Amino acid sequence: MENRSRETVGEDARIIEGRNAVLEAFRAGKTIDRLLIQDGCQDGPIQTIRREARKHDTVTDFVGKERMDQISPTGKHQGVIAYKAAYEYAAVEDILAAARAKGEAPFLVLLDDIEDPHNLGAIIRTANLAGAHGVIIPKRRAVGLTATVARTSAGALNYTPVARVTNLGNTIEELKKEGIWFVCADMNAEPMYRQDLTGPIGLVIGNEGEGVSRLVREKCDFAAAIPMRGDIDSLNASVAAGVLMYEIVRQRLGAGEH
Amino acid sequence: MENRSRETVGEDARIIEGRNAVLEAFRAGKTIDRLLIQDGCQDGPIQTIRREARKHDTVTDFVGKERMDQISPTGKHQGVIAYKAAYEYAAVEDILAAARAKGEAPFLVLLDDIEDPHNLGAIIRTANLAGAHGVIIPKRRAVGLTATVARTSAGALNYTPVARVTNLGNTIEELKKEGIWFVCADMNAEPMYRQDLTGPIGLVIGNEGEGVSRLVREKCDFAAAIPMRGDIDSLNASVAAGVLMYEIVRQRLGAGEH
Repeated sequence: MENRSRETVGEDARIIEGRNAVLEAFRAGKTIDRLLIQDGCQDGPIQTIRREARKHDTVTDFVGKERMDQISPTGKHQGVIAYKAAYEYAAVEDILAAARAKGEAPFLVLLDDIEDPHNLGAIIRTANLAGAHGVIIPKRRAVGLTATVARTSAGALNYTPVARVTNLGNTIEELKKEGIWFVCADMNAEPMYRQDLTGPIGLVIGNEGEGVSRLVREKCDFAAAIPMRGDIDSLNASVAAGVLMYEIVRQRLGAGEH
Repeated sequence: MENRSRETVGEDARIIEGRNAVLEAFRAGKTIDRLLIQDGCQDGPIQTIRREARKHDTVTDFVGKERMDQISPTGKHQGVIAYKAAYEYAAVEDILAAARAKGEAPFLVLLDDIEDPHNLGAIIRTANLAGAHGVIIPKRRAVGLTATVARTSAGALNYTPVARVTNLGNTIEELKKEGIWFVCADMNAEPMYRQDLTGPIGLVIGNEGEGVSRLVREKCDFAAAIPMRGDIDSLNASVAAGVLMYEIVRQRLGAGEH
């Protein structure tokens, strides 16, 4: 219960509502995770806000008045509610720069639509400790950097950059040009122990229900499986990410020659 | 919110209250996770119930009347509330028998006071998929097999036996006589990759805040560390357990000769 209400407070603190406030937020360069526009609103000021949202590639959803009223902390949303990012996103280039600054081959973690903020937080936490240089998440559908993510990351969000991209497949294509190899988690692939995971690498983890989407999987250079010996279907997404990240750590440390 | 209320329903379904009902539950051999007795109640029937609780080694707590009234779904607790285990516990011997039946060296996971039901559930889930034969938890302080644990285990609780013991240190001593070696997770130890984790093994994971307690650690044969390269303190307990379990899997598969 206590967690619950703390979370709600955290969410409310992220809400910007009303036309002027939202427009100002965009123009001041604040990162908006998500924009809600009331169904049917399409007057001039709303069009201006939508233009800003497009310019910043902000995900926009159209929502009924009743729902808008529910979400609004003050009730004065004027048809526009924006969610400010709890933490600032990094650019993909910042992540590569972090690897260069350390003189290390890039080690990136890409998350294909992780929906549970606890999983996202735990993955950022593990990425930090496994020495990954950053995490890349998609803008659409996936959870953003909410207060729950920050808390579950146990502070890692202050150190490990998280970038948000429009299309994960395109980002993979671009990063391949930088010499990065992409491996995706796939339970039908060869066991991870037999794959070469050293060198510049991007590890792609799928979402909780469906794994890595076909379009993203096709962009990857190869796939690696965590051996499953039990009776149930799959590991928790943050545990799977941890096991794979630490196989990369092991191979990078040269502990298991093969 | 939805999770919250589903959980409350799950908890209510586990409550047995009133003197006769609780006494009958004990006598019918039901597993009682925890017994609450109202402060100051010490008449005959209460003494009988406490005798049963001692016989079954059930953790008993004394609670004020106001709190009892809050917990009670019907308000008719008569000074006694028992929490039935959502799932039945196994005996340690059952776990060893499961290993024998598969013709495998025992692989046990021992949890020293994991307090978060989500972590316990995720660890049981991972234990199932990593091919561990069972999980051992202590009776005191740690979380039991609640509805949340069952849900988070993603079904693994139906397959992977969980035993509950009075004293984890004593259990380790007894299992050593069966030829099982115990390794505890300790971030100051040698990296796990350099330890021999093949053969009959018990992996001991500490609680979220403090790691493995001193008394339990001293019973272990050796300690193994997950290498930490980041800025924060520690991995999430279920991620750490997953990474260590899968290092055992790797070594058992003979993938990394050393």
